[in-house]
Amino acid sequence: MTKIEELIELIIGRTNINLREFSMDVGPYVRGIIPKKHFWKFYAFYGMTQHHPLSFSFQRSGLAGSFFLGYCDIDRSVIYKTDVRGDELKLEGDTIDVGDIQITLQKDEKIYIKDSFLIKNLVHNYSHDPEDLGEFGIRNTISMHYANIHGSPLRGCFLGPYATVDLTTAHDCVIGEFAYVQVGELNHELVGPGEVWIRSGEDFDFVYQFPTEILPKYIQMNKEEQPSGLLIDFVEQRQGDFWEVFGRVQFGQARLMLESAAVSRYAVIKGDVHIGENVLIAQRAYIEDSTMGKGANAQENCYIIDSHLMGNNVTAHGGKVIHATLGEDGFVGFNAFLRGSEKSPLTVGKNCVVMPHTIMDLEEPLTIPDAHFVWGYIRNQKDFEENSLSMEDFIKVEGDLAMGNMHFSGSGRAFVKAFAQRIDHILEANGAYFQAGEQSGHAQMGRNISYNLIEPYPEGDMRGMYPTISITP
Amino acid sequence: MTKIEELIELIIGRTNINLREFSMDVGPYVRGIIPKKHFWKFYAFYGMTQHHPLSFSFQRSGLAGSFFLGYCDIDRSVIYKTDVRGDELKLEGDTIDVGDIQITLQKDEKIYIKDSFLIKNLVHNYSHDPEDLGEFGIRNTISMHYANIHGSPLRGCFLGPYATVDLTTAHDCVIGEFAYVQVGELNHELVGPGEVWIRSGEDFDFVYQFPTEILPKYIQMNKEEQPSGLLIDFVEQRQGDFWEVFGRVQFGQARLMLESAAVSRYAVIKGDVHIGENVLIAQRAYIEDSTMGKGANAQENCYIIDSHLMGNNVTAHGGKVIHATLGEDGFVGFNAFLRGSEKSPLTVGKNCVVMPHTIMDLEEPLTIPDAHFVWGYIRNQKDFEENSLSMEDFIKVEGDLAMGNMHFSGSGRAFVKAFAQRIDHILEANGAYFQAGEQSGHAQMGRNISYNLIEPYPEGDMRGMYPTISITP
Repeated sequence: MTKIEELIELIIGRTNINLREFSMDVGPYVRGIIPKKHFWKFYAFYGMTQHHPLSFSFQRSGLAGSFFLGYCDIDRSVIYKTDVRGDELKLEGDTIDVGDIQITLQKDEKIYIKDSFLIKNLVHNYSHDPEDLGEFGIRNTISMHYANIHGSPLRGCFLGPYATVDLTTAHDCVIGEFAYVQVGELNHELVGPGEVWIRSGEDFDFVYQFPTEILPKYIQMNKEEQPSGLLIDFVEQRQGDFWEVFGRVQFGQARLMLESAAVSRYAVIKGDVHIGENVLIAQRAYIEDSTMGKGANAQENCYIIDSHLMGNNVTAHGGKVIHATLGEDGFVGFNAFLRGSEKSPLTVGKNCVVMPHTIMDLEEPLTIPDAHFVWGYIRNQKDFEENSLSMEDFIKVEGDLAMGNMHFSGSGRAFVKAFAQRIDHILEANGAYFQAGEQSGHAQMGRNISYNLIEPYPEGDMRGMYPTISITP
Repeated sequence: MTKIEELIELIIGRTNINLREFSMDVGPYVRGIIPKKHFWKFYAFYGMTQHHPLSFSFQRSGLAGSFFLGYCDIDRSVIYKTDVRGDELKLEGDTIDVGDIQITLQKDEKIYIKDSFLIKNLVHNYSHDPEDLGEFGIRNTISMHYANIHGSPLRGCFLGPYATVDLTTAHDCVIGEFAYVQVGELNHELVGPGEVWIRSGEDFDFVYQFPTEILPKYIQMNKEEQPSGLLIDFVEQRQGDFWEVFGRVQFGQARLMLESAAVSRYAVIKGDVHIGENVLIAQRAYIEDSTMGKGANAQENCYIIDSHLMGNNVTAHGGKVIHATLGEDGFVGFNAFLRGSEKSPLTVGKNCVVMPHTIMDLEEPLTIPDAHFVWGYIRNQKDFEENSLSMEDFIKVEGDLAMGNMHFSGSGRAFVKAFAQRIDHILEANGAYFQAGEQSGHAQMGRNISYNLIEPYPEGDMRGMYPTISITP
């Protein structure tokens, strides 16, 4: 057994200990899931800019294909083709309000990943856990293909493929494939596949459950098999375009269409693409024959194909938009899959919120009016009506509301407001509001970035493992 | 002034202090010599293999375009497009005999470069200075384009373009353009342009002086100008081929023609090239329409064009061979420039030694018989006769010998023996004698190498400077 295989076994063991109450053995899902040679086939890389604290520490880990930005400390972990993006970490001197308590950070926040195995994940944002301020930690955790870990400290967890844990501290939890949780804190919970769960304290609780007969078509996970389904196929079919992008050393600035936009050197831009002001196209985003209106963004693992985004559109990590027109100020949540076609195009009005993990796989043309929430599984007009609500109506909800597979309880007004604030924050953070040198965001601050490429030991039993690397100013 | 410009001024000052007895101001030769933007245009990179101690430390330095292998510690220096190749450094436990004294190294030897500015240099081999064992140090030194620093600790020196300091500790010396010294130790000396000087204690002393009217055609250096001349033009004309090689991320092993050969991923291989067993083609070597016979090698900055190397040919750093046939077991020394042409081809017999810094720029066909030493400036048969001696005759020399611009004194036998031993050592070190898994050298040990690419700060006044990077196992 090579060192990297030993390390994976160690992580399996540590994760299993944490999950023992579920009698869960994660081994058969994970063992051999990455062909061994892939651990030394792909370089890892880290970014340096003037705007992010410079501190990287990599120890006793495999990092193949992964990207790191900001203050990252990786120890005894296998981080495979994963983006660890610390560009919103809190800084020394930042003051955090938690109710009546104010704490000022004494040190820049860091992302600390230990004894964990992350596969094609997106790790972004800062910790929302006030109990361990200044550390966005992931420990004893295994997270499968295309999962998003967003401001979510994790300890002893197993995340299925395309799972998203958003602003949630989770201890000893299993999050099933394509499940989405944004619930603040989770302890010893098992969240089933395709559950979309958003809870804000006592204010509201939103749950949508994907039909179990539908989900496997899009994503499924079985023991001793690669994850499969349409979402995996979709991405794999387009992998070749990324080889070209990752295979070239790209000097200097991000590719600039306009002075205020940033297009990552590690994004695929294909066909006839128009990029407006203040647009952010992150690495591993894929844009083909589309228009990105002013302030629109495409985050990591987004695919935008044959589409027109009118402006200030947030396409959250892993969102996919095909043959669609998206009105201004719209939000497409994590891992949403919106697939129109020439025969069945999708038109989304202004100010709409496509909830995270929504699948719209159209069999007829569909137009969504302005200011609507949509969720769940939508193939046609009828599905749409069962899986949507206008904001005007949502605001009026107080108490319980059940529609199809969705159950809501609490204050509709608080729910709508929470989304509006979050979208506004994302646009601001991404630099969509940049004007006359003010209100810079990722689009502007990520323009001047250096990438350093690192490779593992090339042979022997350390093959695929990286040496101890420390980068400081 | 940006930080990197400040650093260069600091190095100019430190070098000038060391050279004050010569009233030398190196500033006008160095200031602005590298266009500012080049400091952030090219990545630096370091290699990792199983065969070399892994320890890199980069601090407060600019490293654009440079390569590092082995134990390197770089501090407050500008290392520009320079290869620092520590693949022959001494290791902990190695015992060094200096006369009757034996010392065992307590630590792996390192290359330590401090307060120095090296431009397109080749730094290779271990320190031959027994007074500072275990450290191959370069301090307060400026070294110009394509200079070779070969096992030669330097302190307070200025090396002109295409100078070579070989196995020589030099303190407070100026080595002129295209000068070659291999003399053990030098203190407060000024070696003029085009002087080729090889001395071994009391055994022998060889000096050749290039005619001052000839040298500027090939290389010259003036204040406030880029170095110029045919040698510079020759290299610059072929630079475009290297852009392609350096612009591609190249995964995995060295390019392999045969199992026992190593062709660096950073070499240019162009046209119809044949590579024999045990061949070593180092990075920044350029091979075009040529045959590299078994055990032949091309070291850094070598150009081999339209030529046939029959086998076990050493082409030392910076050697250039055009339209030539080189017989077996031949040596072409540092920076030698052998330019035949279709009309005036060069044929060199077996076992010949082309001395370092020889220029053969033929105006008629020339055939050099087996077992000859050649040196100096050769354009035709007449020049050859004035600038060569058969080994048979050289062995007989005892005392003084003057031929043209060459003066020899001492034991010819010792001189011939010293070269034979050195060539044999180089072939062995390079792996030319590899057979059945035994006698590995650089050709075999450099096959599995990882390259890590690093870039400097991309903007602000630190632009072009690298952060503090430490790499250990």
